[in-house]
Amino acid sequence: MRYTDGKVHDITIAYIGGGSRGWAWNLMTDLAKEESISGTVKLYDIDYDAARDNEIIGNSLSMRQDVKGKWLYKACETLEESLKGADFVIISILPGTFDEMESDVHAPEKYGIYQSVGDTVGPGGIVRALRTIPMFVDIANAIKEHCPNAWVINYTNPMTLCVRTLYEVFPQIKAFGCCHEVFGTQKLLSRALQDVEGINDVPREEIKINVLGINHFTWIDNARYKDIDLMHVYKQFVNKYYETGFISDANDNWMNNSFVSAERVKFDLFLRYGIIAAAGDRHLAEFVPGYWYLKDPETVREWMFGLTTVNWRKEDLKRRLERSKRLKIGEEKFELKETGEEGVRQIKALLGLGDLVTNVNIPNYGQIEGIPYGAVVETNALFSGNKLKPILSGKLPDNVNSLVLRQVYNQETTLKAALKKDYNLAFSAFVNDPLVAISLKDAKKLFNEMLENTKKYLDGWELKV
Amino acid sequence: MRYTDGKVHDITIAYIGGGSRGWAWNLMTDLAKEESISGTVKLYDIDYDAARDNEIIGNSLSMRQDVKGKWLYKACETLEESLKGADFVIISILPGTFDEMESDVHAPEKYGIYQSVGDTVGPGGIVRALRTIPMFVDIANAIKEHCPNAWVINYTNPMTLCVRTLYEVFPQIKAFGCCHEVFGTQKLLSRALQDVEGINDVPREEIKINVLGINHFTWIDNARYKDIDLMHVYKQFVNKYYETGFISDANDNWMNNSFVSAERVKFDLFLRYGIIAAAGDRHLAEFVPGYWYLKDPETVREWMFGLTTVNWRKEDLKRRLERSKRLKIGEEKFELKETGEEGVRQIKALLGLGDLVTNVNIPNYGQIEGIPYGAVVETNALFSGNKLKPILSGKLPDNVNSLVLRQVYNQETTLKAALKKDYNLAFSAFVNDPLVAISLKDAKKLFNEMLENTKKYLDGWELKV
Amino acid sequence: MRYTDGKVHDITIAYIGGGSRGWAWNLMTDLAKEESISGTVKLYDIDYDAARDNEIIGNSLSMRQDVKGKWLYKACETLEESLKGADFVIISILPGTFDEMESDVHAPEKYGIYQSVGDTVGPGGIVRALRTIPMFVDIANAIKEHCPNAWVINYTNPMTLCVRTLYEVFPQIKAFGCCHEVFGTQKLLSRALQDVEGINDVPREEIKINVLGINHFTWIDNARYKDIDLMHVYKQFVNKYYETGFISDANDNWMNNSFVSAERVKFDLFLRYGIIAAAGDRHLAEFVPGYWYLKDPETVREWMFGLTTVNWRKEDLKRRLERSKRLKIGEEKFELKETGEEGVRQIKALLGLGDLVTNVNIPNYGQIEGIPYGAVVETNALFSGNKLKPILSGKLPDNVNSLVLRQVYNQETTLKAALKKDYNLAFSAFVNDPLVAISLKDAKKLFNEMLENTKKYLDGWELKV
Amino acid sequence: MRYTDGKVHDITIAYIGGGSRGWAWNLMTDLAKEESISGTVKLYDIDYDAARDNEIIGNSLSMRQDVKGKWLYKACETLEESLKGADFVIISILPGTFDEMESDVHAPEKYGIYQSVGDTVGPGGIVRALRTIPMFVDIANAIKEHCPNAWVINYTNPMTLCVRTLYEVFPQIKAFGCCHEVFGTQKLLSRALQDVEGINDVPREEIKINVLGINHFTWIDNARYKDIDLMHVYKQFVNKYYETGFISDANDNWMNNSFVSAERVKFDLFLRYGIIAAAGDRHLAEFVPGYWYLKDPETVREWMFGLTTVNWRKEDLKRRLERSKRLKIGEEKFELKETGEEGVRQIKALLGLGDLVTNVNIPNYGQIEGIPYGAVVETNALFSGNKLKPILSGKLPDNVNSLVLRQVYNQETTLKAALKKDYNLAFSAFVNDPLVAISLKDAKKLFNEMLENTKKYLDGWELKV
Repeated sequence: MRYTDGKVHDITIAYIGGGSRGWAWNLMTDLAKEESISGTVKLYDIDYDAARDNEIIGNSLSMRQDVKGKWLYKACETLEESLKGADFVIISILPGTFDEMESDVHAPEKYGIYQSVGDTVGPGGIVRALRTIPMFVDIANAIKEHCPNAWVINYTNPMTLCVRTLYEVFPQIKAFGCCHEVFGTQKLLSRALQDVEGINDVPREEIKINVLGINHFTWIDNARYKDIDLMHVYKQFVNKYYETGFISDANDNWMNNSFVSAERVKFDLFLRYGIIAAAGDRHLAEFVPGYWYLKDPETVREWMFGLTTVNWRKEDLKRRLERSKRLKIGEEKFELKETGEEGVRQIKALLGLGDLVTNVNIPNYGQIEGIPYGAVVETNALFSGNKLKPILSGKLPDNVNSLVLRQVYNQETTLKAALKKDYNLAFSAFVNDPLVAISLKDAKKLFNEMLENTKKYLDGWELKV
Repeated sequence: MRYTDGKVHDITIAYIGGGSRGWAWNLMTDLAKEESISGTVKLYDIDYDAARDNEIIGNSLSMRQDVKGKWLYKACETLEESLKGADFVIISILPGTFDEMESDVHAPEKYGIYQSVGDTVGPGGIVRALRTIPMFVDIANAIKEHCPNAWVINYTNPMTLCVRTLYEVFPQIKAFGCCHEVFGTQKLLSRALQDVEGINDVPREEIKINVLGINHFTWIDNARYKDIDLMHVYKQFVNKYYETGFISDANDNWMNNSFVSAERVKFDLFLRYGIIAAAGDRHLAEFVPGYWYLKDPETVREWMFGLTTVNWRKEDLKRRLERSKRLKIGEEKFELKETGEEGVRQIKALLGLGDLVTNVNIPNYGQIEGIPYGAVVETNALFSGNKLKPILSGKLPDNVNSLVLRQVYNQETTLKAALKKDYNLAFSAFVNDPLVAISLKDAKKLFNEMLENTKKYLDGWELKV
Repeated sequence: MRYTDGKVHDITIAYIGGGSRGWAWNLMTDLAKEESISGTVKLYDIDYDAARDNEIIGNSLSMRQDVKGKWLYKACETLEESLKGADFVIISILPGTFDEMESDVHAPEKYGIYQSVGDTVGPGGIVRALRTIPMFVDIANAIKEHCPNAWVINYTNPMTLCVRTLYEVFPQIKAFGCCHEVFGTQKLLSRALQDVEGINDVPREEIKINVLGINHFTWIDNARYKDIDLMHVYKQFVNKYYETGFISDANDNWMNNSFVSAERVKFDLFLRYGIIAAAGDRHLAEFVPGYWYLKDPETVREWMFGLTTVNWRKEDLKRRLERSKRLKIGEEKFELKETGEEGVRQIKALLGLGDLVTNVNIPNYGQIEGIPYGAVVETNALFSGNKLKPILSGKLPDNVNSLVLRQVYNQETTLKAALKKDYNLAFSAFVNDPLVAISLKDAKKLFNEMLENTKKYLDGWELKV
Repeated sequence: MRYTDGKVHDITIAYIGGGSRGWAWNLMTDLAKEESISGTVKLYDIDYDAARDNEIIGNSLSMRQDVKGKWLYKACETLEESLKGADFVIISILPGTFDEMESDVHAPEKYGIYQSVGDTVGPGGIVRALRTIPMFVDIANAIKEHCPNAWVINYTNPMTLCVRTLYEVFPQIKAFGCCHEVFGTQKLLSRALQDVEGINDVPREEIKINVLGINHFTWIDNARYKDIDLMHVYKQFVNKYYETGFISDANDNWMNNSFVSAERVKFDLFLRYGIIAAAGDRHLAEFVPGYWYLKDPETVREWMFGLTTVNWRKEDLKRRLERSKRLKIGEEKFELKETGEEGVRQIKALLGLGDLVTNVNIPNYGQIEGIPYGAVVETNALFSGNKLKPILSGKLPDNVNSLVLRQVYNQETTLKAALKKDYNLAFSAFVNDPLVAISLKDAKKLFNEMLENTKKYLDGWELKV
């Protein structure tokens, strides 16, 4: 790297994954808009052709006149090649294929278990983790060998266990996990400010919050805009919209888009616990007992959110692959608009180009009281000149912490199970998951079936049939 | 108190409760057999006549020639009178009547929630706690005022929350809770030793164990008899009897006695978690998700334990009251046999008459790692000359700790709810209970109904109807 | 307070102390230069006339055309009056007079104990603390009563014990202590950057550091300017100047100004411990055994720093009082230059006018590992919208932590001694102070003499003569 | 091992060291008196002839008719041979020779540093530790390889660092350190009971105490005999004898025996701190600033204890070697009297032959609050059936803890220095030692000289001359 006049040149970023395109294109866009940094992005995907496509798309972008951030994109044939000399590593992989994900999400349905996402916790999240952890063991070992001083940004789910695995394998790693779910809640608070106080268009960055919890089950216990206490504003907002739900955009609501909700789960949690759950309702619902919000499709409809099917994901992937073709041959161009992601801002802060405080996922060194040290948690942290220092964020109320800890211990158990390839340990996490509210006998049948469906990624396991 | 030649005279014991007789008579019997201590037992019960009856029964016992421990029994009309000058306080009350307990145990059944005991956790345990905590607030305050230096022994359930309340109100209190459930597991290990190794009649005191957990959900992670590792012995024993269950006494089994089980729940937990659950199956089943062992009466039968009905308790109380009459008029006499309780041995050790190591319930000062400080836990402790010092007992495996912590946090939440009379907090504990595996709507209906049934003990609460 | 267009009006600041002028004038200057905030400063000093003088000086300043920040200054006759309605409280008092300070600093000299400052630790610091703590008890109680939600900024020494007392008396207080010593070390790092790397005039704010320790004995274990590791730069710098010392300004050096040093103590500590001590040498020398750097005036000269005499302070005060007269009658005017203090920037950040990360003194909630919770420590913290959240700063190396902990425990003991007026406790802190390297008998004589000299501030103590 | 009728046969004990005879003979005596255990003692010493002598002496003892405990003694030529198959390992070595110890103890005298023992802390203790730690690294590795499940009892000084090293190298080791200093304080309490209350001859085991601290600097904050609070008794006793000192045996006092004291240091510490220091005055004096009790020989005389010279030790060794000859050829016989050591009772308890509570040195797992986890501390612990579980012992008052922590951190630093062979780290411990109250320049000269004198045990170090 080379520093001149407030700019940094010759940065090397290794991008692991990206074959499914979404996140890689976001990064390209954000890099293109930023003039203070430049260098090379080395693309690695297990599907080399996908990486090659991205190379072509990225380099054409760099050649555009309206692009300020000029980067060279380069596909690599091996993980090692991409990592060598990297200053930053970005990990955004799909662990397995959508076929395995189909089993994760939908196999449990015949036992009455419905999942709105299925990639974080719940039976789907646990089995996905068992499959993903060995991949992250390999990545961590490769980073340890090839670029131990690089900063590592993870976007892959299950976020908590991916980051946790990196630190388990290589405790000195400089890794963190990024997720935009909290940003969405900041935006909701901005909408509440508009609705209750008539203050319009406050950008989410000006909504100052204290964040604590775990990824996709994060909480806000203090929110402020200038001299306004947003906890109070939100209370009025929730009371107004609890029954009807709050729909931001009538054209894009929970009935036609399974990624959108009417925030009723969030509102219900607020009324019962007094602090703000800070993730989408689809995620929140999966962290609590299945019989609360995910009992059956009717209950889900009552709470006004959707179940994202893997079929939809498969279709969506097709659309992205088609777009990829168009981008490659120049039939389509990126629009250089806000992606809402923070990766590039974080990179700048770590390079010493201005401090940044935002929420990240890293091991608990004491930033949250009441959660075991070492477990990966989500709080605010300060990014500043090659340092990432968490901000002390206090503790959750006991009744919320109980819900969080159940998942934290399950995640720790899942990690150990994956590393030791221990069926019994894994099953103990599975039956302790709040969504797996079925008999021990059924749970065993379901677990065995799900493992069977993902067994090609479970090398060395002794499966029970 | 007066010490002479290894004996202690003029001890004053306040006995709070005892109207339902069982535990009071056990104490009388144990005191009668012990020659090294003597003094006065002051009996207080909200039913003064019951205390008077016990006074008569106790004093006749003291007059018997075969009795070595001579105590004067004296009924007191007020709590204060009984506590003044007390060296020891024993608390063994029935919080409310069996009518409230009937609601605790059986009201949930119409929502498909079955409880085998209903006095510790589960919907019954939580509502019982809400009723009991204010009573213990009063007792703690009275002890603080009238006998702050007395040692306080609690036998009342819910054990954890009773002891927790005493310390919350009067942090300097010298209180601990006693429970014989762990002793039963030591006896089972003795039976396993006989069955597997052919070593007969090993007394439970010679089964050396490390104890950790919370009352009625206690665990043993290390057990030894001389040079024999009992964890290994128990494994063979469990494998042998897992399917059939183990019945100690063919004449007194789980089919005709709801207090007895065939240990299948204990065996199943061992196979899944690798350490020994150390309480009766009826208790253990209530600490884990209802759909595991308590889904419905058929499931309970499959796991070979019984549901103790409150009707049975009412009948049993009648039998005890009749026996009380016979004892009072001398138609019946106590047999001076082993009760299996340890209260008198603990009193002796605290008086400096020989050290004792046994399991007790006191706040966590670090004796268990991984459970919050201040929560009441059960481990071994050393009783020695006016000191009670817990023994460092290590930590539970993550997957077991998760089950335990769910209850610990629920208990802390229940305590706060009872002290603040906060409906919302109480409800958050209620819906987080593993037995309350029903919809939020049903949970609210059930909770309201149960509170209604116990409302005369919920002074100052704002109930929702 | 009123928010409009990025400005905040009608702020009320209570300024406690200021009679000795220095800090009060700095605040006036900083407020005058800042246009985004305005309101009233209520001045309280036990010397009412001094407050009146400041009122006149402040208001004339506000009337100047070149002043952007318009504040109304108002002297108050009572502490209560000044605190009522305050949004911010600034505490900058002289505890006692320079006569007591003369005893603090110079009485120990006849026992061979030399102090370069004598207001933080050492025999002088301890006795000053015993005198100051009761004053801060009163201030804390008054804040609790009259403005419990105000932010409280302390500048008074002994910093750690002043802040610690505020929290001891009123745990919910929103207080922090500010000190510019760390800034001085940032400036030294900037000089090192110039000397070693030829990079000139880097402002101290761009020197990114991790701060940990206690006030006046703070350490930096990580320092960076853009891509340059300043730990490495500093090492070269120290090796170059260890023997000769480093003198920034030939006209203002340690031989003619007892506030200046040649940094040799700091360099020696770096060579021995490997991390950067971040305070002036005069302060640092007082935190370690007296026989290291303060054995006698010759040793002090060898290490190239000065002993600030109280006589000098008395003369300096006279100069300030004369200047006060000139300012009052308009014979002299403030120059609106940089004071280097951060109070106004912190106030702005707390008002929500932009985040700020800087070092502060607050109780340890976990921001430093290895120092007891609750002890007041100095680390970076994030100021943001009515919140002050410490940044997790890691732990000191064991050998440094040992030096720090000796003072931390001494401070805790001093606090307890002052609150309980307990001679024995106070003496145990006194003889454990690293500067008090004399026999127990001499220590007792000295301690008694020093208490005698300050006894009018030791109401309720039983002194031994 | 073989268990029959409450006895255990075929036990294997490895005894490492013993060439200087004292401790080995104590063990032989204690084993000879105990009928419930038997087996083989394998003797290893770097001086093989010494081990052979002990073999002969031990076996003749076993052949005596009045001996109940029959053991086979067997000298081994290698450490490995002695450890193979060991159930217990006893370590009691002299690290280096009395020539190195002469430097440890007496070299500092020319700088005015006097040491009464010089084997635990102080300049002598630190340098001895640097020499000893590599030996314990070797022993720990050998135990890990040859008898990882053996119980390891250490008697070697510096106790804390010997035990700490064993755990550092082999964290799963089952080791503990034994020391009789606390027993001496129990005996003193028994004498106080006699003097103040007229109760004679209470055996030390009946003095119930709570122990906390580190070896040779251990404290008692609670002591009781039956219903008598010994803290109160001790206070009266101290007040009576503070000035004159207390001399148990007029024929064996501090003026003619440097191992004996008049307890004045202990009394002074009690008056200043309010709790009982529980080690001999010679040890206690070394843990606190040198200018308190060890300023010069006159001060030592005033405090009525002695400086044990290494010359005395050399003479004493000669006497023991002569006695060894007599024992070997049968000219002298052991008297089977009480040694006062507890090793054999601990072994029995670990074998399951009855529980034992006594004080031991093991890593801090939470048994003492306020001392870092992992540091070796001394508290009571329960020995029971192959388990050693510390008893929660609370925390020291802040002012005492400060003195203790200074040593704890010094010990941790010394350990790291020895393992890394890091001169700077070692020197930072050296100058932080409370006895090293001299200038940095002198400290460096002394340290270099002392290292030079012991350099043959400092393989791999880069010494500065």
